Amino acid sequence: MRDFSADHRWLSLNTATVRKQGDLLAIIDACARHGIRAIDPWRDQVSLIGVGRAAQAARDAGIELSGYCRGGMFTSDAARRVEVRDDNRRAVDEAHALGAPCIVLVVGGLPQYSRPGSEPSKNIASARAQVEDAIAEMMEYAKTAIMPLAIEPLHPAYAADRACVNTTRQALDICDRLDPGRTGALGVALDVYHIWWDPDVLSQIKRAGKDRLLAFHVCDWLVPTTDILNDRGMMGEGIIDIRSLRRAAEQEGYDGYSEVEIFSIGWWARPMDQVLKTCIERHRTAV
Amino acid sequence: MRDFSADHRWLSLNTATVRKQGDLLAIIDACARHGIRAIDPWRDQVSLIGVGRAAQAARDAGIELSGYCRGGMFTSDAARRVEVRDDNRRAVDEAHALGAPCIVLVVGGLPQYSRPGSEPSKNIASARAQVEDAIAEMMEYAKTAIMPLAIEPLHPAYAADRACVNTTRQALDICDRLDPGRTGALGVALDVYHIWWDPDVLSQIKRAGKDRLLAFHVCDWLVPTTDILNDRGMMGEGIIDIRSLRRAAEQEGYDGYSEVEIFSIGWWARPMDQVLKTCIERHRTAV
Repeated sequence: MRDFSADHRWLSLNTATVRKQGDLLAIIDACARHGIRAIDPWRDQVSLIGVGRAAQAARDAGIELSGYCRGGMFTSDAARRVEVRDDNRRAVDEAHALGAPCIVLVVGGLPQYSRPGSEPSKNIASARAQVEDAIAEMMEYAKTAIMPLAIEPLHPAYAADRACVNTTRQALDICDRLDPGRTGALGVALDVYHIWWDPDVLSQIKRAGKDRLLAFHVCDWLVPTTDILNDRGMMGEGIIDIRSLRRAAEQEGYDGYSEVEIFSIGWWARPMDQVLKTCIERHRTAV
Repeated sequence: MRDFSADHRWLSLNTATVRKQGDLLAIIDACARHGIRAIDPWRDQVSLIGVGRAAQAARDAGIELSGYCRGGMFTSDAARRVEVRDDNRRAVDEAHALGAPCIVLVVGGLPQYSRPGSEPSKNIASARAQVEDAIAEMMEYAKTAIMPLAIEPLHPAYAADRACVNTTRQALDICDRLDPGRTGALGVALDVYHIWWDPDVLSQIKRAGKDRLLAFHVCDWLVPTTDILNDRGMMGEGIIDIRSLRRAAEQEGYDGYSEVEIFSIGWWARPMDQVLKTCIERHRTAV
């Protein structure tokens, strides 16, 4: 396992972590100041300043991307299918323009939450089937841009409203069905927050292997969790044995960034520099 | 599948549902008034009035038990092992005195939450091993009272602080290892709140079969969920396809109670009679 204690060259910042403190230009500036070499920006943050300007700013600062957040939200009623498809095609175009190594897919839960206004449904099996069809369709488009898709299994607490792919096994089953040849077009983005509880996680990371491990995200699980979406912890604040998960990924050959992604009302309220300094410190001691 | 639309003879009330509105005697009275034939009381509620008085009150009202909540919280540091074992033995004695058909086991998460004061740990695999050892030990005692143990898999949102058994598969794996002969000494308590999201749930219910299905609990999953523990919904308020889960259990021969268990700040604030009337109505229309 790589030694992170001496520097933070393998730290990437998911820009949602400081989304309340400044726009993407300010975040890129701050990353450059702190010697952070990579970011994973969100579409809304990119859109606010424009794709061209975002790409230029990152290039100028010598910062690369560890991913692009996010494609997905595939589940909808029939009336919205084309809109969903086109939205995801635009995500591919943006990721390509930004030079991202992959698009992270948050696949959507039930259609009424994934695409508001859609006919309500309680059928999660049907949502899952729709997700798989939509990923297959998106892959065709993404292949033309040689843009890998990284399915992110989300914690089962988000099954209804954000993602009905909730385990690493489920995500890898989709990968195996849609990309049996392991071409590099499809893989997973693993976030310790979503997978730490899973009794199968270590064997599934092994199953994934290097070619399916496209991204590795870190934060921590707080006890108690006071907000189901926005009370994630800084690494080391909570109960996740982060290192054992990173070890499992690296044993398969994962050698990419450890991307800090923290949705937290508490951390959003602190100055950007303080948050980044803490990320760096915890990257060295708790990741 | 049984038709629940005409009456509520298969409704049982988990007494936590109205725990803020009155003591166990008041709850038993209210159940009798509403023609509810069964309850699943909690240990703290029983303890407040005494086991003998609780048993007598239920008998006098013609109310039986569908379970006894709860045993478990097995994870602790070494110093507390004997205390945990004895606590669970007392639960068996109480369940026996009350005539409960089984004890529901909430197995505990990491030791510092399961048994406060225990040495903190982030090792969930070790917690799981401890749980299995402790269930094996508890079974020996429970067998002398012919008291079945029902392992309740809890939603992964509770993996850290309440239960590290988080899927039906995991619970059944324990059952198969500790009771390979399916003697009736060990099974599962399935609560739709905890299992609805699981892509394997239907096949695992089939695997369980009638002899492992010891209890079936209902409520609903709300979107958004504003409190991770105490914002559960009344059946029909949320997004769980309750009927498909009940159908799967009944296809295996489950013919016991459908037990309403709702932890909800909102429902706790309403009068007991209103809550019970709503439970009965939703039992007929949404379960």
